[in-house]
Amino acid sequence: MSRMLQIQAHHLRNLFYPKSVAIIGASEKKGSLGRAIMENLLKIGFPGKIYPVNIKGNSCFGLKVYKSVLEIREDIDLAVIIVPAKVVPEVVEDCGKKGIKSAIVISAGFSETGEEGKKLEKRILRISKKYGIRILGPNCLGVYNPKGRIDLIFNPPDRQDKPKPGDIALLSQSGAFGATFLDFMAEEDIGISSFVSYGNAMDITESDLLEYFAEDPDTNVIAMYIEGVKNGRIFASMAEKVVPKKPIIVLKTGRTNSGARAASSHTGSLAGSDQIYSAAFKQYGILRAETINELFVKAKALAFLNPATGDRIGIVTNGGGAGVLTSDFIELKNLKVADLGEDTIKRLETVLPPQASTHNPVDILGDAPAKRYVDATERVLNDKNVDGLIIIIVPQSPALEYNELVKGLVHIINAQDKPVVIAIPGGRIAKKLAREFERYRIPAYRTPEDAVLAMKALVEYGKALRKYKEKNSSAVIQKIVVKKQ
Amino acid sequence: MSRMLQIQAHHLRNLFYPKSVAIIGASEKKGSLGRAIMENLLKIGFPGKIYPVNIKGNSCFGLKVYKSVLEIREDIDLAVIIVPAKVVPEVVEDCGKKGIKSAIVISAGFSETGEEGKKLEKRILRISKKYGIRILGPNCLGVYNPKGRIDLIFNPPDRQDKPKPGDIALLSQSGAFGATFLDFMAEEDIGISSFVSYGNAMDITESDLLEYFAEDPDTNVIAMYIEGVKNGRIFASMAEKVVPKKPIIVLKTGRTNSGARAASSHTGSLAGSDQIYSAAFKQYGILRAETINELFVKAKALAFLNPATGDRIGIVTNGGGAGVLTSDFIELKNLKVADLGEDTIKRLETVLPPQASTHNPVDILGDAPAKRYVDATERVLNDKNVDGLIIIIVPQSPALEYNELVKGLVHIINAQDKPVVIAIPGGRIAKKLAREFERYRIPAYRTPEDAVLAMKALVEYGKALRKYKEKNSSAVIQKIVVKKQ
Repeated sequence: MSRMLQIQAHHLRNLFYPKSVAIIGASEKKGSLGRAIMENLLKIGFPGKIYPVNIKGNSCFGLKVYKSVLEIREDIDLAVIIVPAKVVPEVVEDCGKKGIKSAIVISAGFSETGEEGKKLEKRILRISKKYGIRILGPNCLGVYNPKGRIDLIFNPPDRQDKPKPGDIALLSQSGAFGATFLDFMAEEDIGISSFVSYGNAMDITESDLLEYFAEDPDTNVIAMYIEGVKNGRIFASMAEKVVPKKPIIVLKTGRTNSGARAASSHTGSLAGSDQIYSAAFKQYGILRAETINELFVKAKALAFLNPATGDRIGIVTNGGGAGVLTSDFIELKNLKVADLGEDTIKRLETVLPPQASTHNPVDILGDAPAKRYVDATERVLNDKNVDGLIIIIVPQSPALEYNELVKGLVHIINAQDKPVVIAIPGGRIAKKLAREFERYRIPAYRTPEDAVLAMKALVEYGKALRKYKEKNSSAVIQKIVVKKQ
Repeated sequence: MSRMLQIQAHHLRNLFYPKSVAIIGASEKKGSLGRAIMENLLKIGFPGKIYPVNIKGNSCFGLKVYKSVLEIREDIDLAVIIVPAKVVPEVVEDCGKKGIKSAIVISAGFSETGEEGKKLEKRILRISKKYGIRILGPNCLGVYNPKGRIDLIFNPPDRQDKPKPGDIALLSQSGAFGATFLDFMAEEDIGISSFVSYGNAMDITESDLLEYFAEDPDTNVIAMYIEGVKNGRIFASMAEKVVPKKPIIVLKTGRTNSGARAASSHTGSLAGSDQIYSAAFKQYGILRAETINELFVKAKALAFLNPATGDRIGIVTNGGGAGVLTSDFIELKNLKVADLGEDTIKRLETVLPPQASTHNPVDILGDAPAKRYVDATERVLNDKNVDGLIIIIVPQSPALEYNELVKGLVHIINAQDKPVVIAIPGGRIAKKLAREFERYRIPAYRTPEDAVLAMKALVEYGKALRKYKEKNSSAVIQKIVVKKQ
């Protein structure tokens, strides 16, 4: 990395791991954004120094309030700006004078509102360039990093749950959707490395953030909500660098005529034809989600598991109907229901009752105890015609010993390399059992359909990686040929 | 109804509202099906008389155990049979002699297991015909009717949650999937009128059950899981009678080659080409669900709301991104994003801030309080270009007063006829708010995509009803023409 890039990456890192934060617009006023951010930052136990700033002075949650950042003597890593739009230029100027190099402008009222707002946004950009400040926003929800204990989300804590620490970085162009996604992840018990809402992307764009998360050791997968990207070429060339290192999964809206019209009035994104995005995503190996649910279903699998080396999927189930549904879905999603080898079928016959199905889907029957699951799983996983396995557990069955099942399956699954996802359909009890498997980084879903989507992502990412490898090795070959000349 | 049909319907009613039940194979033995059924029936507070029957005699949960139904003096409305397969013919013979007219054979080991089992099943059928007993099963999970307080499901209560009373009848060919569906409905807080798993459908078929639920006053919508139907023509002619009265929504698997192969080995269903099923479903106005989730998303909307009279959908949202996603989904699902009338746009301009979008999707902005929702909803619902409305509530917004929102929206929505579905994306807090709306029979979903699927079902059912109406009026016209001749 060049020195310039290193400095930039450092300033992005300050968004997620600042040692000191100035909250400009901090307040104790009920219902104010300044209050919610102060509450959230205190609640999460931010380990650094907090400097509330407000023109009115006084104190805020027991902390001294500064009238301007220029009054603060110590260094400030990050300024969070929540003052009215028209005051923002002046505040950013102060940040520049103070030597602050990273800022989040949460305030709205800029390019998203029309011509006047666009001018105001350009003014801020000029000031930020003058002082070399990297700015996130404006018009954004903020940043959340549970590991670094930084929570700069402006929604009040009693209305906004947030996920536990984990491996998924989440980038959202939409602030409101970002809030919803965090709440959704918390409910589904899916962990996050960092969340960032980047709003108008005046300075820091989705591509800059991709670059940062590609190097972030806590992030295994990058999930994104976008309506459009700031600069298609830069985004593509960044994706080309990131995807070989870690998967990118995108929920891109504005796909239809109606959606594109709505996107243009929402974020001003010229959504462009969906075909162009689709082609680009395919070319660079960016994975796509069709729905909110699919985004997290796929991100979880990509965060936990190695990609699949092929598309032939095995199924082990104690419910025949679930086996039928899963077979349908595998074929509908352009994966293959694996043809088991004759050896495997013989080996299954020795451990399954005569009424069980030893062909794929392997139906071990409703009265299957844990041992039958373990035996069947071991045999199907060892088949060289199987690239990935979906295990379906109908947990209502009285025959299943849950503890033995988890212990036995985890042992076999984690001792080998093929990806295994689990579907435990049902409600409360199913969810509880799913969490047991996920403690061992085996993703478990509430429907067979979700399990197939998860497997699809692992197959597609595997394919993308192989394509990159081939390209690189042909590049190497070209070099050799050149040398020979 | 003919006298014969009345008697048959009466015997089906005995499955769901028996006054006395003999549990043949009742037991206190831990892990036994006989114990689970006794526990479930006692737990739900069955108001009728329970007669445990077991060849071993003795007592069961404090009740006297009879060695045979023939020992019981009182009349028995329903026999539940859970003895080993080979004993079933003899037990059914006893039931016949006792004058029992309705039975559920839960035991497995019949036609689903091969030639021997097929013979055994035929023997039972002959006995049942001889005595005029209507039999559900064999190889089924049982029956659940929370209003009639009848629970004959053999899964132990600590592994199987069950839904509250409601308007959806659920019919499942698969027992294990049935168990899962009940658990799923309980978790999602979706109410049920009755659940029935009909297994091998030796005597009582899905068509008989459709006929029963068409007349059941507690059922507003019939949801089904099937891999194939027993007799396509009978099913079609039954659907033709039922659909004009209440909607049927089906999750049919065995759609693909892989799925059809799996179905044939699971229930022996010759799944037939999916095109044939699709064409028949379309012709008779049977709605289809692609996934488990979709089955219940659609069933809930159909249970609560009138069908839509057209496909032009309005959107009101406090999240711009959610508006874009919803517009996409409406178009992808072949519905239309309604073009609002000029009057409506003008009327919206008077109540929305200048930065709001007064075109569809109507974006009332992230800082919208309850009143803005109510004002916008009233205006969009009154537009004659709008056939149905999706309201999206991003609940994390600090500006929303929940109580006022629910009160205001319920008042407006329930005072008119157009269907309105709500999407409240998020987690715990979103779910809680959704339940508030559902108390007033306004269906509320956790993603905008689910809300669109729900609306799609209402549009499709409306279309099916109009088609039936046209057909009938043309039939009337034909008659008149005939008379004239």
